[in-house]
Amino acid sequence: MAMDNQETVLQALKDHLKPEQITINETIKELHGKDESYHQMELPDIVVFPETTQQVSAIMKVSQQYKVPVVPFGLGSSLEGHVIPKSGGITVDFSLMSKVLDIDAEDFLVTVQPGVTRTQLNKELKKHGLFFTVDPGADATLGGMAATNASGTTSVKYGVMRDQVRDLEVVMADGTVIHTGNKAAKSSSGLHLNGLFVGSEGTLGCFTEMTLRVYGIPEFITAARASFASVKDAVEAVVSILQAGIPIARVELVDEQSMKQVNLYNETAYLEKPTLFLEFHGNEAGLKQDVEFMEEIVQGHACEEIAFETDTAARNQLWEARHTLAYAYIHGYPGKKLMVTDVCLPISELAGAVNHARENLQALGLPGGIVGHVGDGNFHALIMMDMNDEGEVAKAQEFNERIVVYALERGGTCTGEHGVGIGKQKYQKQEHGAALDVMEKIKAALDPQNLLNPGKNIQVDNKEAIQ
Amino acid sequence: MAMDNQETVLQALKDHLKPEQITINETIKELHGKDESYHQMELPDIVVFPETTQQVSAIMKVSQQYKVPVVPFGLGSSLEGHVIPKSGGITVDFSLMSKVLDIDAEDFLVTVQPGVTRTQLNKELKKHGLFFTVDPGADATLGGMAATNASGTTSVKYGVMRDQVRDLEVVMADGTVIHTGNKAAKSSSGLHLNGLFVGSEGTLGCFTEMTLRVYGIPEFITAARASFASVKDAVEAVVSILQAGIPIARVELVDEQSMKQVNLYNETAYLEKPTLFLEFHGNEAGLKQDVEFMEEIVQGHACEEIAFETDTAARNQLWEARHTLAYAYIHGYPGKKLMVTDVCLPISELAGAVNHARENLQALGLPGGIVGHVGDGNFHALIMMDMNDEGEVAKAQEFNERIVVYALERGGTCTGEHGVGIGKQKYQKQEHGAALDVMEKIKAALDPQNLLNPGKNIQVDNKEAIQ
Repeated sequence: MAMDNQETVLQALKDHLKPEQITINETIKELHGKDESYHQMELPDIVVFPETTQQVSAIMKVSQQYKVPVVPFGLGSSLEGHVIPKSGGITVDFSLMSKVLDIDAEDFLVTVQPGVTRTQLNKELKKHGLFFTVDPGADATLGGMAATNASGTTSVKYGVMRDQVRDLEVVMADGTVIHTGNKAAKSSSGLHLNGLFVGSEGTLGCFTEMTLRVYGIPEFITAARASFASVKDAVEAVVSILQAGIPIARVELVDEQSMKQVNLYNETAYLEKPTLFLEFHGNEAGLKQDVEFMEEIVQGHACEEIAFETDTAARNQLWEARHTLAYAYIHGYPGKKLMVTDVCLPISELAGAVNHARENLQALGLPGGIVGHVGDGNFHALIMMDMNDEGEVAKAQEFNERIVVYALERGGTCTGEHGVGIGKQKYQKQEHGAALDVMEKIKAALDPQNLLNPGKNIQVDNKEAIQ
Repeated sequence: MAMDNQETVLQALKDHLKPEQITINETIKELHGKDESYHQMELPDIVVFPETTQQVSAIMKVSQQYKVPVVPFGLGSSLEGHVIPKSGGITVDFSLMSKVLDIDAEDFLVTVQPGVTRTQLNKELKKHGLFFTVDPGADATLGGMAATNASGTTSVKYGVMRDQVRDLEVVMADGTVIHTGNKAAKSSSGLHLNGLFVGSEGTLGCFTEMTLRVYGIPEFITAARASFASVKDAVEAVVSILQAGIPIARVELVDEQSMKQVNLYNETAYLEKPTLFLEFHGNEAGLKQDVEFMEEIVQGHACEEIAFETDTAARNQLWEARHTLAYAYIHGYPGKKLMVTDVCLPISELAGAVNHARENLQALGLPGGIVGHVGDGNFHALIMMDMNDEGEVAKAQEFNERIVVYALERGGTCTGEHGVGIGKQKYQKQEHGAALDVMEKIKAALDPQNLLNPGKNIQVDNKEAIQ
């Protein structure tokens, strides 16, 4: 979208940033016009690379003065079009703000800039015997993970991104810099802003610093791979394990179709059956007892094969296989785009929901697999679609819609971890009802000119923000 | 505070509530004019006892129409004056909304009305092998616990009240009924209202239904009581246990002075030394290994005596002793009022903070003890003051101030679990800085007439709400 005041805005930005921190280069704009989803590319007018909180504050003030939208950008690994600048404007790329500022081992806290990635942080933490728990698969930036309330394989034990955030430094629409929390493990002071800003998808402010909770690397880890006769058996086994009170650190479901894709892409030879990838963290004696109990339970749910991996290398290979699955599909279907559904339901509804998804994939004749963080009740269908085939796109969208409606009718949510972005906006009213008005009032109070990532998350109508 | 339109308001309420649900009886008003704190009593003009969400909605509409403040009331066990109707108006007592509506054992969820108390819920849950984790000591209502983001002895393992809330039904200022969440274990949809409303102290809306997370009763529980040479040794032992990654379910510090009070009140004969009360939940083999490791660690921190209790009755007696401590002080100092400090700091700052508190108690010549949920970095000084002795009150307030400033200067919070109410308002600006403006904007957006528990939490100036 062309800005009619681009020259003026560029000039205003140059008062605060060095020339090399501002660009209108087409290639760079294209890199900031899309994410890893199927959503259509749209270009920003300007891309900036701030190095300090003060510079971000200055960018926000320029945005307010000239009524230019601002879109924060991490690495573009989002899956619902969050970073696509639908109304043009300034994209704020945080790649130059990627320092681990402080590791406070005694308090199990780290302070990072938003451009730090998950694996970068874990590399630093390892030296201190610590790790950051949230693992969405992609090597996303922590700023992006906070903006979408990312989670992933370990949330069943350690919680989601929101649970790890102790404090955010946030630059508000008017350039004011606030802190949403502190370094204490808990607080009942004031209104709880941490939780509100996590998952706000850049619509309430830009994160410039984050204090996050980390954990000690577990004394002992056991991983298991269990193959089942059917997806239903696998899901029911997980429900039984949870009900037995066995603390699982990770539990991933990979269906038969996806196991085939895993083997193809990773050159592994896993049994091509619905499979659970499990992990347990704890002390040696406790784990032994838990794992024996777990084995007993899965045998009662038509488990056909179970293999354990306590060795780090074998465990890493197992999780690598799970994590590369989206890429395995993308590589397996050249020229097609990935659509990933992302509902989360009460665990009692999960077996039915996965079954419903499988039936609908078949009924619609869509190629794709089902995987899931089943301990949380969250699963994904991965569908490869030819964006030039209108019929296929329509079928994939129809499928997504059926999955979401099924979840919402059963007390679930349209997105367990990917966020709303563009793709889940149309379900916001159905999911939140009258609470959507409350969310809109908060958005309007904190961003009255509607310039922060306009047209995303709860906000469908972005006409006012368009230049 | 006398309302000049009381008759009109009473008449309007009678259109929606039965006569016996509305009262202006002086004794009942007095019961709703105070909590368990030292804050001065002020009377509501009217007390209502709604039975349904629809009635609460009607009360809110009356409040808006006639510009009458509304104060929600659970059992009055708050410790910072939250329920004291500073501007008069209508107090909404939730004692008739005290049903456990649903126990969903498969999903580890319960749905309750806000007037249900913690022990009432746990009695129901026990039949299903489940328990509700949050345990602030007092048998508070769950609505009140959510309103203050209560926590207590088990938060170090299971989290605070905010971590348990999946969904709140909230009646907003204008009478609209919203749901802040759903039944899924996680969600990245919309703005996160659950966390915002928990801890909002009745200033954003009235809770009328709550869906909460519950846990299976642990397979095995071990409790321990460890006595130390000094408070510093005890706190350092806890830090070492946490750093060793041993999962503690509860860890309470009770200082020497408070152990004396415990023994007096409970007729127990515990060693009158700084003591840790600990509890571990897990499977038998894992606990054995954890507890052996823990014992090794405490021996390295001048532990003088350690005793274990695996038997339920002995364990209950131990926790009973800890829980009745506030009452032990109140009974030990007839005619005096209890002031409880409530800061929470990063755990690395805890030993210093407790030491600082002890020194200041002595320097100011105040009688009192120190106890704390030390695994969270949260501790309380319990001070008994003669409200008629201006000098003593001034000293107690000076003490509280020193404790709070010490915590805020070290990345802590002025209240770990009791909430702001009236007592912690003066520290809101220092604690939250520019974020306080953001909180004020949210409050103004959701309660534009400032009628929901006016003059509490972040809001010091309540002139506008006064009739």
